Amino acid sequence: MKIAIAGSGAIGSGFGYLLKKGGHEVTLMDFWEDHIQAVQQNGLTIAVNGQQDNIDIPMDKPENIQEKFDVVFIFTKSMYLQGMLEAIEHTLAGNTKVVCLLNGLGHEKTIAEYIPKENIIMGTTVWTASLEAPGKTSLMGQGPVEVQEVDPKGKEAALTLVQVLSDCGLNGIYSADVHFTTWRKACVNGTLNTLSALLDANIEELLQSDYVQHLIREIVEEFSRAAKAKGIGLEVEEMITYLNEASKKVGTHYPSMHQDIMNKRPTEVDFLTGEVAKIGAKNGFKTPKSQTLTELIHAKEDVLGISREH
Amino acid sequence: MKIAIAGSGAIGSGFGYLLKKGGHEVTLMDFWEDHIQAVQQNGLTIAVNGQQDNIDIPMDKPENIQEKFDVVFIFTKSMYLQGMLEAIEHTLAGNTKVVCLLNGLGHEKTIAEYIPKENIIMGTTVWTASLEAPGKTSLMGQGPVEVQEVDPKGKEAALTLVQVLSDCGLNGIYSADVHFTTWRKACVNGTLNTLSALLDANIEELLQSDYVQHLIREIVEEFSRAAKAKGIGLEVEEMITYLNEASKKVGTHYPSMHQDIMNKRPTEVDFLTGEVAKIGAKNGFKTPKSQTLTELIHAKEDVLGISREH
Repeated sequence: MKIAIAGSGAIGSGFGYLLKKGGHEVTLMDFWEDHIQAVQQNGLTIAVNGQQDNIDIPMDKPENIQEKFDVVFIFTKSMYLQGMLEAIEHTLAGNTKVVCLLNGLGHEKTIAEYIPKENIIMGTTVWTASLEAPGKTSLMGQGPVEVQEVDPKGKEAALTLVQVLSDCGLNGIYSADVHFTTWRKACVNGTLNTLSALLDANIEELLQSDYVQHLIREIVEEFSRAAKAKGIGLEVEEMITYLNEASKKVGTHYPSMHQDIMNKRPTEVDFLTGEVAKIGAKNGFKTPKSQTLTELIHAKEDVLGISREH
Repeated sequence: MKIAIAGSGAIGSGFGYLLKKGGHEVTLMDFWEDHIQAVQQNGLTIAVNGQQDNIDIPMDKPENIQEKFDVVFIFTKSMYLQGMLEAIEHTLAGNTKVVCLLNGLGHEKTIAEYIPKENIIMGTTVWTASLEAPGKTSLMGQGPVEVQEVDPKGKEAALTLVQVLSDCGLNGIYSADVHFTTWRKACVNGTLNTLSALLDANIEELLQSDYVQHLIREIVEEFSRAAKAKGIGLEVEEMITYLNEASKKVGTHYPSMHQDIMNKRPTEVDFLTGEVAKIGAKNGFKTPKSQTLTELIHAKEDVLGISREH
């Protein structure tokens, strides 16, 4: 298969590497000059669960790539999705499948502005990755990658993709309800990431506080109501149990939004609590916690001088 | 006059010093052993606007003081007011005036549990002070101290107090509406202190953010509504203008709640946005911003391991 990775940072490089090792024709796309140069000159150096390797793999800016692809995986921050779609539009054929594993809500609608719904495959993944230096990355975990079509006509493509992912060691799973999985993940991030970033605390420190537990419940109630407005059943008690269970495994981990704030990068808050607040406003119900948290995170970006331009 | 200072930290020591220099019989009361010992052994060392002095002044724990006083000034953190009243109750005669210049809301009601309303004098001050070491403090500013009785029968006592304060260089002013002044000050603190503590930003950094300005407006609207429920006219536009004007003078200053958080001390948030949320709940209107901010500040105390026991 001819596969492109649109956004080849830590996680994108990891997927690109395993797909290429699995026998596919893979092209990495990104905008970061230093990273592109490093990969072009020295290949991609990568450790998959500690296993070091170096491979030659084509990498360039989208504007320099003239081919069309069978499948494009998008790995950008939520707020750069639209810009990336603009940049790669010329590489999409009428039947190119676009796979979106981004965190956050509302992405399907954004992608549907560029390609037919039957070509969209949505999903989530728990693979983690880090980028140590230009051209040097690592991939951690065992996955899985859960994916599902968003239009019945796309089911065959989704099943093929699951096979491709699994054959390449990425642990593909066909999701029976990708919308639910996406919302559940967004709800975990919308509670723990925002509170961690705002209170400068790791997951373990957060969950010990009764006030945090109270806030989590209120935020989850808003996510549940917004999910319902979108036809998705996100049950409050189940969600709170899931969230506390999932958190036990990560303990002293600082979520990505905390890292964004510490490194003075814009956060994805608009696609988490921000999207819940938007859905509430559209459907006539109040989301005081989601709205306040979104405003406070943006206020925090402001006082740190973080630009939200993209 | 026989005057006691109940809570003789930075600001209390400053008031005690100037009142004693003005010819009154002043006793300092506090609970901090090291500070009491230092003052007992070496006197109180103080700089008033840079002017150094050292005086002998009686100081002890309330339980060791058996006299009764004409006037008692209370200078504690809001959450220690009730405990202080318990501790000094035996020093209050039937006609002892209690003067409360604390920040925050709801104190009058607490004091009225211990003495008749006609003996309560409420006020605000803009004197600032710091405590460098046990027995060593400084007082800065020119005041004023605005005071007013809360019961018409207390007016003469309030006017006498204004005279005493002015004679001693503390710049006493008779306030025409001490409830308004208290609410206005609480509103400044309830917006800027909470946001500064939460976002780890000084006043100047805060006010540059559009998101902060938006949050300030929403918080002020809630303060205005709660004030109205208490019969006090706190007009939103006037308050926002006042707040921005007052803030220009303090620029890079970090408010006291930020300092509390940095020094891992409990905050006074329950007597600012917390009180607004309580008034809202009692009077059947929503205060989402005040409530969320109060919860977030308490969550921040929790993750820092700050105890709220007193």
